[in-house]
Amino acid sequence: MTIFDKLFAPEEYAGRVRAVQARMRAAGFDVILCQDPANMCWLTGFDGWSFYVPQCVVLQVDAANPVWFGRAQDAKSARLTTYLPDADIVAFSERLVQHPQEHPYDELAALIRDRGWGRARIGVEMDAHYYTARCHQHLVAGLAGASLANNGDLVNWARLVKSPAEVALMREAGRICTAAIDRATGAMRPGVPQQDVIAAVLDTLTRGVPGAGGDYAAIVPLMPVGEGTSTPHLTWTDRPLPDNTLAMLEISGVRRRYHAPLTRTFHIGEPPPAISDLAKIIVEGVDAALAMARPGHTAEAVEAAWQAVLNRHGLSKQSRVGYSIGLAYPPDWGERTVSLRPGDRTVLEEGMCFHIQSGLWLTDHGAAISESCVVGPAGGERLCDAPRELIVVR
Amino acid sequence: MTIFDKLFAPEEYAGRVRAVQARMRAAGFDVILCQDPANMCWLTGFDGWSFYVPQCVVLQVDAANPVWFGRAQDAKSARLTTYLPDADIVAFSERLVQHPQEHPYDELAALIRDRGWGRARIGVEMDAHYYTARCHQHLVAGLAGASLANNGDLVNWARLVKSPAEVALMREAGRICTAAIDRATGAMRPGVPQQDVIAAVLDTLTRGVPGAGGDYAAIVPLMPVGEGTSTPHLTWTDRPLPDNTLAMLEISGVRRRYHAPLTRTFHIGEPPPAISDLAKIIVEGVDAALAMARPGHTAEAVEAAWQAVLNRHGLSKQSRVGYSIGLAYPPDWGERTVSLRPGDRTVLEEGMCFHIQSGLWLTDHGAAISESCVVGPAGGERLCDAPRELIVVR
Repeated sequence: MTIFDKLFAPEEYAGRVRAVQARMRAAGFDVILCQDPANMCWLTGFDGWSFYVPQCVVLQVDAANPVWFGRAQDAKSARLTTYLPDADIVAFSERLVQHPQEHPYDELAALIRDRGWGRARIGVEMDAHYYTARCHQHLVAGLAGASLANNGDLVNWARLVKSPAEVALMREAGRICTAAIDRATGAMRPGVPQQDVIAAVLDTLTRGVPGAGGDYAAIVPLMPVGEGTSTPHLTWTDRPLPDNTLAMLEISGVRRRYHAPLTRTFHIGEPPPAISDLAKIIVEGVDAALAMARPGHTAEAVEAAWQAVLNRHGLSKQSRVGYSIGLAYPPDWGERTVSLRPGDRTVLEEGMCFHIQSGLWLTDHGAAISESCVVGPAGGERLCDAPRELIVVR
Repeated sequence: MTIFDKLFAPEEYAGRVRAVQARMRAAGFDVILCQDPANMCWLTGFDGWSFYVPQCVVLQVDAANPVWFGRAQDAKSARLTTYLPDADIVAFSERLVQHPQEHPYDELAALIRDRGWGRARIGVEMDAHYYTARCHQHLVAGLAGASLANNGDLVNWARLVKSPAEVALMREAGRICTAAIDRATGAMRPGVPQQDVIAAVLDTLTRGVPGAGGDYAAIVPLMPVGEGTSTPHLTWTDRPLPDNTLAMLEISGVRRRYHAPLTRTFHIGEPPPAISDLAKIIVEGVDAALAMARPGHTAEAVEAAWQAVLNRHGLSKQSRVGYSIGLAYPPDWGERTVSLRPGDRTVLEEGMCFHIQSGLWLTDHGAAISESCVVGPAGGERLCDAPRELIVVR
């Protein structure tokens, strides 16, 4: 017996594999390769911080299960975290790690040929973060008889509607996130070193809440301060928090790799009325988006509802107002499928999850009061329960 | 005035740019593209968690400074964290984010043509983690007149020898790491939920030590437990720490993105003599490697010194015993240049930094007692000062 819990029952993984194989048939692929760690985990349960070396799962359209391919020292992780039979856990030669001429995917190509798939229609993830130009180059060179094409994030799209077991984890992640925002509110004071606020947030995100321990997030806590709030992706410094300043905190509660992100804006000291007003407009816009996030509505309709509120107040937002969320690994907790923006006509279904990222980044400051939600019959159900306002720290 | 400290003086960045341009001339490149976030930061100071979308710096061989190219909402981060003039901070159109047909690098190709480099010899980072197959595909399509080739991690190699200012940050990172190992030792007890140990470690890593606040690491704390110690990259679970078990902790102190990683092995309860003996052999092997890590010796000689100790005790290690370290972003704190392994004949110089990762992953358990070091005249100078033994928790 191993001490490692598998994340889901074997039947859930089998159902996912069959659903993906149906998509493969529809798209005309005999074999797909998934290097996106979230796709690898979703299809097999494989978990571990080994995605900095080339690794993937290979799924043939009629196979009972995928094949895991990776580094020898990580093959044992595959045995501990997946239900895959040993014959379908294949390690590449250690000397290929960061080798200037040869590449692990030379051996992946050989594996694919050995399995009889050397002339197959193979779909790869051309834009997955870790599928580098060199991975592709070596695979193309080693599979001259196959036809390689972009699989268009086929597995990412299969992940879009969450199962009840997944939604349960998303809700637990939301509870963890709520607790961490609460902790941040208590930690923020003028003069406190910024890293001490982050340490407090990470402490809660990691310990989690009773019955649900926390996991690591695909993005570390972001905390732009002052003029930094005019851009979204700055991390903390070791400067003290100034008085009379804005700070934006974007974090995610994570439960067994499922993410519920949230952004809140804090004002240290009494806020100028313009900032308080901006916060109210944002919450009003998010409410409109949540109400629109019902089965049968499109992604772009959700955005339009938000944008209409902004426009009514003389504002607008260039970037998308949200994206689908779920299982994630660094560097991003978005699923890279649905974007809540004009032109995205994806029809919403129950069980889809979104981060309604209502950030406005203006010339010298910004604000965001976002919500993560699961699409329910009456609209987006919020996963977190943090105060829906500009949080004023006095 | 901005509240953002630049990481180094303008002269340090200028010196780096000139050093890279000299390497470009030697390698026959007119222009290079760097998408590796560590290369972007090292050349310009650019910092922010925006590497999940395509972005890069472009350096022409005679230019005064690189050009930053990225998402509009992150351009302000470039203005706050770099010395680049506004004309050399170029944003792509927001609609291109995760667009299924078009790509931000269509506009990058246009920028390169507009600057008159459309027929240049351009070196790209074919194996940088975020330089996806699709990034390359769109660049090739948009630059039909140019010749694109792998620049062979040219900037990573330029980063190998650290400046005095960089070594000072590495030593601060080492102090932070030492404090975190100490904190972990106090937190590990049988029955403690694993995530509580990690929360304590993250708290110290983030708060840092007096005078040096902590930053986020390129890899989250890894903590395989029990049979999990037979594979290196498992993260924590929310199971309690069992009694009479092994646990391995691999973490990094980080100071302003400079990393000093360390691995320590803990035994909860009285260790079996075989484990204690294994730990002593590992420390002996690391000592031999540290003594060999002197200017003029090769990377493979360092490995051979370690392997000789193992062999004398009837053991061996397949994977490399270390790699160069320094400035890093997720997903890896290695620099992807020098590996301490047979065949790597890089000659060591003062100021190079290595993680001597002495992990042995056996059939059902493993152990590692590693050291990060800077190459000094008398050998590898340890950056951390954690107990060099199997840490027994009673």
